Amino acid sequence: MCIQYTRRLARDLKRWVHEDSPLGDVTTDAVFWSKEDSEKIMDIQARSRVYVVCPSLIEGALGALGLEPEFIAPAGWTQGVVVSVRGLTKELLMFERTLLNFLIHVFSISTEVRRVRELLDSSGFKNVRVAVTRKTVPGMRLWAKLFARAAGADTHRLSLSDMILIKDTHINAYGDLLGAVRAAKENASFTHKIEVEVSSEEEAFEVLPYVDAIMLDNVGPEEAKRIACKLKEAKPSIIVEVSGGINRENVLQYVNECVDVVSMGYLTLSPPLVDLGAEIR
Amino acid sequence: MCIQYTRRLARDLKRWVHEDSPLGDVTTDAVFWSKEDSEKIMDIQARSRVYVVCPSLIEGALGALGLEPEFIAPAGWTQGVVVSVRGLTKELLMFERTLLNFLIHVFSISTEVRRVRELLDSSGFKNVRVAVTRKTVPGMRLWAKLFARAAGADTHRLSLSDMILIKDTHINAYGDLLGAVRAAKENASFTHKIEVEVSSEEEAFEVLPYVDAIMLDNVGPEEAKRIACKLKEAKPSIIVEVSGGINRENVLQYVNECVDVVSMGYLTLSPPLVDLGAEIR
Amino acid sequence: MCIQYTRRLARDLKRWVHEDSPLGDVTTDAVFWSKEDSEKIMDIQARSRVYVVCPSLIEGALGALGLEPEFIAPAGWTQGVVVSVRGLTKELLMFERTLLNFLIHVFSISTEVRRVRELLDSSGFKNVRVAVTRKTVPGMRLWAKLFARAAGADTHRLSLSDMILIKDTHINAYGDLLGAVRAAKENASFTHKIEVEVSSEEEAFEVLPYVDAIMLDNVGPEEAKRIACKLKEAKPSIIVEVSGGINRENVLQYVNECVDVVSMGYLTLSPPLVDLGAEIR
Amino acid sequence: MCIQYTRRLARDLKRWVHEDSPLGDVTTDAVFWSKEDSEKIMDIQARSRVYVVCPSLIEGALGALGLEPEFIAPAGWTQGVVVSVRGLTKELLMFERTLLNFLIHVFSISTEVRRVRELLDSSGFKNVRVAVTRKTVPGMRLWAKLFARAAGADTHRLSLSDMILIKDTHINAYGDLLGAVRAAKENASFTHKIEVEVSSEEEAFEVLPYVDAIMLDNVGPEEAKRIACKLKEAKPSIIVEVSGGINRENVLQYVNECVDVVSMGYLTLSPPLVDLGAEIR
Amino acid sequence: MCIQYTRRLARDLKRWVHEDSPLGDVTTDAVFWSKEDSEKIMDIQARSRVYVVCPSLIEGALGALGLEPEFIAPAGWTQGVVVSVRGLTKELLMFERTLLNFLIHVFSISTEVRRVRELLDSSGFKNVRVAVTRKTVPGMRLWAKLFARAAGADTHRLSLSDMILIKDTHINAYGDLLGAVRAAKENASFTHKIEVEVSSEEEAFEVLPYVDAIMLDNVGPEEAKRIACKLKEAKPSIIVEVSGGINRENVLQYVNECVDVVSMGYLTLSPPLVDLGAEIR
Amino acid sequence: MCIQYTRRLARDLKRWVHEDSPLGDVTTDAVFWSKEDSEKIMDIQARSRVYVVCPSLIEGALGALGLEPEFIAPAGWTQGVVVSVRGLTKELLMFERTLLNFLIHVFSISTEVRRVRELLDSSGFKNVRVAVTRKTVPGMRLWAKLFARAAGADTHRLSLSDMILIKDTHINAYGDLLGAVRAAKENASFTHKIEVEVSSEEEAFEVLPYVDAIMLDNVGPEEAKRIACKLKEAKPSIIVEVSGGINRENVLQYVNECVDVVSMGYLTLSPPLVDLGAEIR
Repeated sequence: MCIQYTRRLARDLKRWVHEDSPLGDVTTDAVFWSKEDSEKIMDIQARSRVYVVCPSLIEGALGALGLEPEFIAPAGWTQGVVVSVRGLTKELLMFERTLLNFLIHVFSISTEVRRVRELLDSSGFKNVRVAVTRKTVPGMRLWAKLFARAAGADTHRLSLSDMILIKDTHINAYGDLLGAVRAAKENASFTHKIEVEVSSEEEAFEVLPYVDAIMLDNVGPEEAKRIACKLKEAKPSIIVEVSGGINRENVLQYVNECVDVVSMGYLTLSPPLVDLGAEIR
Repeated sequence: MCIQYTRRLARDLKRWVHEDSPLGDVTTDAVFWSKEDSEKIMDIQARSRVYVVCPSLIEGALGALGLEPEFIAPAGWTQGVVVSVRGLTKELLMFERTLLNFLIHVFSISTEVRRVRELLDSSGFKNVRVAVTRKTVPGMRLWAKLFARAAGADTHRLSLSDMILIKDTHINAYGDLLGAVRAAKENASFTHKIEVEVSSEEEAFEVLPYVDAIMLDNVGPEEAKRIACKLKEAKPSIIVEVSGGINRENVLQYVNECVDVVSMGYLTLSPPLVDLGAEIR
Repeated sequence: MCIQYTRRLARDLKRWVHEDSPLGDVTTDAVFWSKEDSEKIMDIQARSRVYVVCPSLIEGALGALGLEPEFIAPAGWTQGVVVSVRGLTKELLMFERTLLNFLIHVFSISTEVRRVRELLDSSGFKNVRVAVTRKTVPGMRLWAKLFARAAGADTHRLSLSDMILIKDTHINAYGDLLGAVRAAKENASFTHKIEVEVSSEEEAFEVLPYVDAIMLDNVGPEEAKRIACKLKEAKPSIIVEVSGGINRENVLQYVNECVDVVSMGYLTLSPPLVDLGAEIR
Repeated sequence: MCIQYTRRLARDLKRWVHEDSPLGDVTTDAVFWSKEDSEKIMDIQARSRVYVVCPSLIEGALGALGLEPEFIAPAGWTQGVVVSVRGLTKELLMFERTLLNFLIHVFSISTEVRRVRELLDSSGFKNVRVAVTRKTVPGMRLWAKLFARAAGADTHRLSLSDMILIKDTHINAYGDLLGAVRAAKENASFTHKIEVEVSSEEEAFEVLPYVDAIMLDNVGPEEAKRIACKLKEAKPSIIVEVSGGINRENVLQYVNECVDVVSMGYLTLSPPLVDLGAEIR
Repeated sequence: MCIQYTRRLARDLKRWVHEDSPLGDVTTDAVFWSKEDSEKIMDIQARSRVYVVCPSLIEGALGALGLEPEFIAPAGWTQGVVVSVRGLTKELLMFERTLLNFLIHVFSISTEVRRVRELLDSSGFKNVRVAVTRKTVPGMRLWAKLFARAAGADTHRLSLSDMILIKDTHINAYGDLLGAVRAAKENASFTHKIEVEVSSEEEAFEVLPYVDAIMLDNVGPEEAKRIACKLKEAKPSIIVEVSGGINRENVLQYVNECVDVVSMGYLTLSPPLVDLGAEIR
Repeated sequence: MCIQYTRRLARDLKRWVHEDSPLGDVTTDAVFWSKEDSEKIMDIQARSRVYVVCPSLIEGALGALGLEPEFIAPAGWTQGVVVSVRGLTKELLMFERTLLNFLIHVFSISTEVRRVRELLDSSGFKNVRVAVTRKTVPGMRLWAKLFARAAGADTHRLSLSDMILIKDTHINAYGDLLGAVRAAKENASFTHKIEVEVSSEEEAFEVLPYVDAIMLDNVGPEEAKRIACKLKEAKPSIIVEVSGGINRENVLQYVNECVDVVSMGYLTLSPPLVDLGAEIR
């Protein structure tokens, strides 16, 4: 699924290299001034366990930058060399930091997503989806969603041009919960599902007839599970999402057989960083 | 110092809003379809302590987006409302997440920088600089450096087009430490300082005559402080930077009167997140 | 709903003016070479009936170009002056054709959408949605969808990043209908509805259990209505869309109480053109 | 003549694919999630007669997108397969609609241009030029002009940075016809021809001494032909263009041996659409 | 004529400021770190005579950058203060060099154009046009042409999308002079004039019947004038342009009553520089 | 050192070709309308001595444009053919002027830099650096600096994001020389050197203790040399730069053993132009 994005990643990498060397790389220029251009290999090493995804995308994007991928770790858990790439020494040195910054960002996401996914799988919650959110660093939305998904997450909405998700700010701005939901129901395209964020059982039941999904936000774990089951009982087709301060430490408290989705903002905004470094040989 | 960047931030915010709503905001469209456009106020609340910097920049950028800032917290520690901005309801709802994502990113940096700065100040190390690095999320370099600096950090190199910093990858690619340093010295512009990353006292003394600064990277804290003092003794004008796995927990172990700079990659790549949310009224 | 797009339309108008005058407007330059810049008013006249939508968007975008809107016709049917705008003579002359080209494009869409909408309304099919498609002139997607919607259309998918719509090409590439639908069901985000394009009753019933919506494509009108009712009977929540060669002339043949949506590609790709011209006074 | 534009078309296609899949193609992602990437062939079929032009341009642009053209119909009339292109299944599915939207737009123009051209040729008017205008969908100017020209049209002005064409709006804004024409004559670059739009014989003769070409706009067909001959008689080098509401149905009424050019706005803004579809095998 | 370009110049100025301060202005940051933002006035002084044109354009562009123009010298010869602009000190300091670089570039062009123009005027050659060429620094075409024209030059072709000018490279690539000219005549749009570059009387007469203008390139001055008169005699409507190594020193040798245009590449590529500097008060 | 910039130059060349042919090349279109596309070779000839640098960059960039370099003159002095490039005739003709404009700009810089460099070398001033400045034509900064450097110049600051250089405008805006220097010293990043522009011995000694370099600007040559030696005597590590009206004619007057750097704005803004032309075969 990742390969269609090769050209887009190549374009972004070029922009980011430009951000990091707007008027060139004065260190590499000075050190290698009198040296012939020669080819070297740069190994990007994972000094912690990394859950690699989208290797073909990375391979394609490096190629589009004029580099020759020698090795890309296959999808899955890995440690040690993740990427080996051959290129002109001066180009490798100029791209090094940008590549690392990008890979650390996206592999930290995929790695943490995978940990949460495996925790739920091994705890008997294979059917509960782990969803990422729109809490992504500006400019990184596509990559955050893509790497999360490839590691087993549900993308949730990709953007505001996606499903209808009525949040507390909409409700406050509109004035009342039910009015906002009904207005959305009436005016939404038939192509878009409707979800509403609620914070109590009462609100959940008020909107239940009108919506495809309900997000229980910042409700305590026990309360969330209890309401989820009551909602499912009342309307089996409803999708129940639980959200708000959930992470790998506490996620098991929030899930039961009635919860369809747990969404976690930290997965894309501040997952624990994987430790990647580069070596040239 | 932040005000010159107003137009640039306005441009980035427009791009990021576009990333989050490439074909519009279907939720706001549906909910407010039949409502007249009206003005509301959106409060961005800090639910944890935040070290605000560059309020005039944020004010200017919001204005350039067609929003009317009602209140921006002054530079310094704050909690509660950080930004209040008036605008058309539909625009506030469309900008909300993008604004939050940006402010969380940059205020997390400024807040952690400030904590480290204050820790050093209160521990008698006012003269030790806290430096951020080129470990920034791609696309966020300018903002990461700017908000870090405004909170009291040294920006370190802004990009590769800046000072000469010879790292292990340069040395490996070149073949030998001293050769690389001499080549740089010979070919560098007179406008650029030269720093070298070394990992032992021996290397440090080998390059000392040629360079303006020495980075002791991944040397243990005691060793780093010891080498720093020997270097200062040998060449008082040398700038000594210590780097590698340093954070707020362990920074005090790494500094003494001979260490000029401690640099920390996590400050820009994964500072603890500040907790910001939005409310509309 | 249109007002959030002001800045985006202003940006597009600037690009389009640049397309039409990459190195300036030599006619206006030559004719007005020795004339002082003076302000005039340009009236954009509709010589045929036009269904105006999004007047506030147009007003805002003109303002962002440095022009002063004097009059914008209110939303609804109009004839005669649609837009009156004051500005420097030379700017009005340089913008004239670009403005006309844009307004003709989008008002032709809104006008034809409205005609179809009103035809259905007056024929007792208020509940049947008129949907536009992804058949839009490249570069005009946002505007085509926005003006269609404001005139009463359902936007249908805004882009491929929207709902899941499995078309014949997907099925052919995948190899079998049911396999493709099941794969989609399993891998789709919970946030996205699933629709499948089918061309027979048999196919429709094969996928019915798995999908939110079914598009009957290029099925004859009587057959389409018959299948629609059988599908509704079997699964009342199913959304039935009819598509393929439908236009204002034949749309009434395709709808009954079981058809939820009729989608028509020509609405955005080749609606009858409204006749707009400009006059300067 | 088309081949120089390969890189520009490749760039535009990438932008338009991005417009149609800002955050990816969720359908293809979901359906093919667990499938290996494999290569397929997509045939773009013309279900109506199409006048193909610029096959080498299309071939080159597809190649620049990473697709492998298998067959492009040669320039001329065709039916059935117009383009066959090999590529990764997921890329073909993601590009399908964008390619179709583009080819429908430009081949509808080339096809209608050709029909008018052939009608004039077969009616003894080989010397009358069929000109397109600046009435093009914003963003499509280059392609509209290029495909029209390759089908036998005169491009007329490509943009405002081209010849001098004084229209009624210039004249109204300037105040008087002759004054405007004389000002243009005096101030125009020697490299640019001057044409004036007039609507009567009297006006035509007033400006005749000063201009290279005269456009008779919205004059009835008989009147236009009569004035054309009188102008030619008075000044044989004058180029006479007839314009205003002319189309394939009525064009023969407007031409005689004195008319050099007939220009038709509908050729680029609303030609009858060719019927193209895609199949994957 | 310059005012329509305000938005375009503002956009270019922003890009150029970004080129000169990709990650900010570290000098201004450091010097004014602890100073309140205050407003100052920057005077741009001409230390040599400058022929100012387009003052309203410059005024508008400065305004669009957030600066407040206090004084812009009126069109014509000036010395001393050319532009006075008020703004935040830090912004003035950041824009200073970019503004100077731009103004030096364009005012050097306008000043030298004017000198040549006045030389011809005062020598009795008011009717000879001074033309600039396509020899412009990449990226500066619009501004070079605009400022040259405003100072009295003929713009000549603005770009390749303009008139037909058949040069020696076309002829060499085509194979023969007359063939190339006839092909152009047959295939050119009626809207474009045709000019041919020739280097002998024989060639000039060979193409004379087919073209609107003839460029005598790198023919000696006496020869050029002689041929010009013979051409005029044979075809009074022909436009004769003389080109090749002409400058202010030798231009009077190249002109007589038969020469319509003298074109000079150095006017846009290397005019003598005007001496501008900035002062802050 | 030039090879890393291949992609950036290819991108710029594409932009500049677009500037010169926004809607195509009507001459080449018309002349070659009925000709098959064929390949030719274009020779770019130096009709004056040129100091070629960065041949590998030019080779790479041409390749990235789809052209096949046949020959690029090696780095060093050359005359005659500088670049031979094979390509489709129509593309060669469309790129010709843009390539020439670019190469004339950058090779004029490299050639003049080299002449100054060689003059100093042969006069016994091998240790004096020739520096270019930020006086570059907007948009050409990277190329001006790169080609100058490759010819033997010191780049000096690449942009404002580089070293700290406190000029008279900073001092005037700040209010006093010493205050400005001290503020900069206190607030600058440790990575950036500090230089100050002064115009007298007194000022130079006032700031000497605080800075890394001193620029003697617009001081007479004898005075400059005298002050330089006094500064060196007082602080041997100080770098002394001399600036202001220096060129190849007078540079030897300005240098002695105490002057480290002479900087010359004309090298990038108005070097004598090299004479390049193109031929097609």
